[in-house]
Amino acid sequence: MPEPGREPADEYELGENRYGKSRIRLVTVRRDPKRHHLRDLTVAVALEGDFDDVHTRGDNAGVIATDTMKNTVYAFARDRLVGSPEAFGLELARHFAGYDACSRAFIDIEEHRWLRIPEDAGEAPDAFVRAGDLTRLAHVAVDKAGGVEVEAGVGELTVMKTTKSAFKGFDRDRFTTLPEVEDRLMATKLRATWGYRPELAAAASFEFDAAWDRARLALRQSLADHFSPSVQASIWIMSTAIMDAEPSIDWVRMVLPNLHHWQVDLAPFGLDNPGEVFVSTTEPHGLIDATVHRRGGARPPSG
Amino acid sequence: MPEPGREPADEYELGENRYGKSRIRLVTVRRDPKRHHLRDLTVAVALEGDFDDVHTRGDNAGVIATDTMKNTVYAFARDRLVGSPEAFGLELARHFAGYDACSRAFIDIEEHRWLRIPEDAGEAPDAFVRAGDLTRLAHVAVDKAGGVEVEAGVGELTVMKTTKSAFKGFDRDRFTTLPEVEDRLMATKLRATWGYRPELAAAASFEFDAAWDRARLALRQSLADHFSPSVQASIWIMSTAIMDAEPSIDWVRMVLPNLHHWQVDLAPFGLDNPGEVFVSTTEPHGLIDATVHRRGGARPPSG
Amino acid sequence: MPEPGREPADEYELGENRYGKSRIRLVTVRRDPKRHHLRDLTVAVALEGDFDDVHTRGDNAGVIATDTMKNTVYAFARDRLVGSPEAFGLELARHFAGYDACSRAFIDIEEHRWLRIPEDAGEAPDAFVRAGDLTRLAHVAVDKAGGVEVEAGVGELTVMKTTKSAFKGFDRDRFTTLPEVEDRLMATKLRATWGYRPELAAAASFEFDAAWDRARLALRQSLADHFSPSVQASIWIMSTAIMDAEPSIDWVRMVLPNLHHWQVDLAPFGLDNPGEVFVSTTEPHGLIDATVHRRGGARPPSG
Amino acid sequence: MPEPGREPADEYELGENRYGKSRIRLVTVRRDPKRHHLRDLTVAVALEGDFDDVHTRGDNAGVIATDTMKNTVYAFARDRLVGSPEAFGLELARHFAGYDACSRAFIDIEEHRWLRIPEDAGEAPDAFVRAGDLTRLAHVAVDKAGGVEVEAGVGELTVMKTTKSAFKGFDRDRFTTLPEVEDRLMATKLRATWGYRPELAAAASFEFDAAWDRARLALRQSLADHFSPSVQASIWIMSTAIMDAEPSIDWVRMVLPNLHHWQVDLAPFGLDNPGEVFVSTTEPHGLIDATVHRRGGARPPSG
Repeated sequence: MPEPGREPADEYELGENRYGKSRIRLVTVRRDPKRHHLRDLTVAVALEGDFDDVHTRGDNAGVIATDTMKNTVYAFARDRLVGSPEAFGLELARHFAGYDACSRAFIDIEEHRWLRIPEDAGEAPDAFVRAGDLTRLAHVAVDKAGGVEVEAGVGELTVMKTTKSAFKGFDRDRFTTLPEVEDRLMATKLRATWGYRPELAAAASFEFDAAWDRARLALRQSLADHFSPSVQASIWIMSTAIMDAEPSIDWVRMVLPNLHHWQVDLAPFGLDNPGEVFVSTTEPHGLIDATVHRRGGARPPSG
Repeated sequence: MPEPGREPADEYELGENRYGKSRIRLVTVRRDPKRHHLRDLTVAVALEGDFDDVHTRGDNAGVIATDTMKNTVYAFARDRLVGSPEAFGLELARHFAGYDACSRAFIDIEEHRWLRIPEDAGEAPDAFVRAGDLTRLAHVAVDKAGGVEVEAGVGELTVMKTTKSAFKGFDRDRFTTLPEVEDRLMATKLRATWGYRPELAAAASFEFDAAWDRARLALRQSLADHFSPSVQASIWIMSTAIMDAEPSIDWVRMVLPNLHHWQVDLAPFGLDNPGEVFVSTTEPHGLIDATVHRRGGARPPSG
Repeated sequence: MPEPGREPADEYELGENRYGKSRIRLVTVRRDPKRHHLRDLTVAVALEGDFDDVHTRGDNAGVIATDTMKNTVYAFARDRLVGSPEAFGLELARHFAGYDACSRAFIDIEEHRWLRIPEDAGEAPDAFVRAGDLTRLAHVAVDKAGGVEVEAGVGELTVMKTTKSAFKGFDRDRFTTLPEVEDRLMATKLRATWGYRPELAAAASFEFDAAWDRARLALRQSLADHFSPSVQASIWIMSTAIMDAEPSIDWVRMVLPNLHHWQVDLAPFGLDNPGEVFVSTTEPHGLIDATVHRRGGARPPSG
Repeated sequence: MPEPGREPADEYELGENRYGKSRIRLVTVRRDPKRHHLRDLTVAVALEGDFDDVHTRGDNAGVIATDTMKNTVYAFARDRLVGSPEAFGLELARHFAGYDACSRAFIDIEEHRWLRIPEDAGEAPDAFVRAGDLTRLAHVAVDKAGGVEVEAGVGELTVMKTTKSAFKGFDRDRFTTLPEVEDRLMATKLRATWGYRPELAAAASFEFDAAWDRARLALRQSLADHFSPSVQASIWIMSTAIMDAEPSIDWVRMVLPNLHHWQVDLAPFGLDNPGEVFVSTTEPHGLIDATVHRRGGARPPSG
């Protein structure tokens, strides 16, 4: 592949690299005689390893085709997708980390929630509605030596606090026009991920579903309860609440857009507006990204 | 505006036309001392009328600026958004139909559902999560003479039946490769709209919320219950169930994509797949669009 | 399928209905020895016909499966996609209109433009970049008796006029705050469709590519040249320019969002802003939809 | 803000954090008497610094409001957006890095291309069409001490090679079903970013536009020319071509989805398919992410 008489590898070298298959859309139906169980996942696989010759020499020996990754996900789904998405991710990641060329395998899962449709006689055994209120996230990394990192989280969670949110005392300079406010709407499309202590997460007995439930409940409760002096402070408060509730979590990261709701000036129309009518906007938005750690705990992987 | 010596209006004429403001994003908060009430609407306004000179002569006399429409929506939201979206739409449409140039005004509303965040001590009074499972639709037309058309519906409702769906007995020719199936997944992102009998909908006493609730319940129940020989038949079954449940509805229209879920062939990996593992797809998709009428009832407006 | 003892068809009847396959993604490569020819279409098929029993009785006899439609599109692409998208659409529509149950077939095509990548030595024979500046549209209807309607157009064409656009003289009332402006930005994502005179479009000799080119050139020239007193007037001017240029076109419809660009008030920062700095917005937007006819010409199909 | 009697800061600590304003939509028009110049940017600002008390104590002293960031971008656009996006980004980043609390400021810019509309008499002086074929990317970081990192790139560049792409010799195991291919379509939506040598990029005289042009030309030429044994090898080839052409670039990163085009099996319809008819897909897709370095050059910032 290198042009004759030219060896780019003398001047250049391969740096960080990773490849895999994204957007593997997987639905499973477990057909209990009494009622069906539906799951809906979007899976991504990525591998790191010794792929220098693949890039620099066009030598595909050792390459696991991304099509093979896709096949593996579906095959594993046949009988190994029986518990948490994290456990499924670990099975897959351990499999891929076993390939010679692979030094570390990553599995990324979004699990979409479906609810049974309510009927007069209870819940439907075989009809479902997509919940749409949040997505469960799982991210797993397994290295050649068996080292494990497990992250979980929630995404696509759109929430609003209609009071108990202020923003004041901030820096003012010649480009500042925003007034201080004691009481504003705070709206965000929340994405929170957290890392479990590696030695706990690596144990077969670790209960990912229970941990996720406790974390989610703490997030929900603290989200509703707390007074927010800023989105930054909200991240601290909600993140520490999550770790208070779930000791296996060593860190929490939140990436929160601040989806501004501007109070409409109705004075031109002879009307007051005591915090009742707002324009909902998405552009531009604030974006706050912060990680909170348990002192002495594990750190999130960089990148 | 016409070029000198040229009168396009001799050769051409204006046909159907309509203009307005779309994507008016409106959030209201009613601040009950005990708990806040949050609403979130996307509103569109459109007008028909005598706008020939606007188009053909560049004469803006009589044009209601779309910016004015937006202002009006926010001003009306101050104290007239107290009941159903249909009632709010009627207030707005009647206002716009009162302009001299306007012969008919249309208001289109999507109401996004938010739920109170559950807390240990009950529901949060001032913190909400966007439900995401469906959008409530309302569409209102009012003409100069006060004639009223009101449609309601649900959109963005993603549902799946994991059994009780077949597809067989269809035409086979040389381009047909699809096997007949007794039992398949049926998944769709449902949009259903229905029209209320005009004389009922025009009455101040008509209870749009109650009618919508009954229609939605009937949709939900029939969706879960019925056996589907085709998406077409499902539309008939669900539409007639809605009209059975709500006599004020004269017609139901459904536009249903058939979001195919293909059973994965796991045989190459030595595995069976008894209806358990599926690929979820969105491209291409079937698209079924049908309207069912009550005999003798009002007809949906064309276009 | 009807429940025992119940005949919904006594009370209800099927109204307008149509079904088919959407989002059929098709790429073809013609491998000339000297250079390849790449085409990229998104095709939708829809049929109308006698499908009452399909809906009301769950009887699929006569149903052409949407999967069969997809197969047919790919099979026809093998050797019949050699000219314009309109001609390809006519071949497909005539085929589907030939099915017993089908009374009218519709083919909808978006053709995505790709350009050869420029190289030092000319244009690449086998490497392409997606143009992204517009999509060519074609819509064809063929009925059982062979009657033909052909529409063409352009979509996804985002354009801006930085002057020669005003908006004044409009109605003012108590909800009006918009100032009159002599000179504003006008930006839109244009969708224009036009109808060819049926007897011309039905002739095998009609040159759809040449007609489309002429119409597009006239649109482009008039878009750039004209002074716009309103978006409505722009539609009239551009539509008549298209029909002036292409006598086979009987009507033009444009649906134009008015994508507002608000001049930023820089006075708080001690700066003037003589029409130089703008906020680009998409929500809310004006939406203007109008059809212009040639007097005595064919009319656009309703719906 | 911490609850009475509780000091989460004993157990937890703030980790990496960054905040700012995203999706600042900016259009500028320079009104030369002869012709207007249109630019269209989407800007994001992000700051790192000493924001511990903001998070952990709800103390907003030192916080630059994201609204202020937005205002600053518009104010700077008034007379400082005269050259490359990188230069504009450096002006902004240096300004924000000057705030006491800020240790490092990031500016991220997407510049959307617009072209003059061609007219009979040449190019329109004041009417533009959005090109849509690619987005120019610029990313700038400035730290308190004035240290500078400048990245540039292209995004949203959708390209296809209709030959000179193979994929064979890869690993085969029990989950592998993909056949080896000598000749396939390769399609991707390319995102390439590259880093300039910091000491060069920090110099006022550095010509970002010229460097970007050279890099883009090299990318284009190598994209069209090269034979691809894999997407990974394509990244190596194109990245080294970019660095060959532009010595100021120390590294190139590409993130390339492999947008599969599956050759349709037309045999069931009695047709061959010699590489002519393909299904275009987006889900799932391969995803290849790799960075290539100049030996001895600067490294990309992590994260």
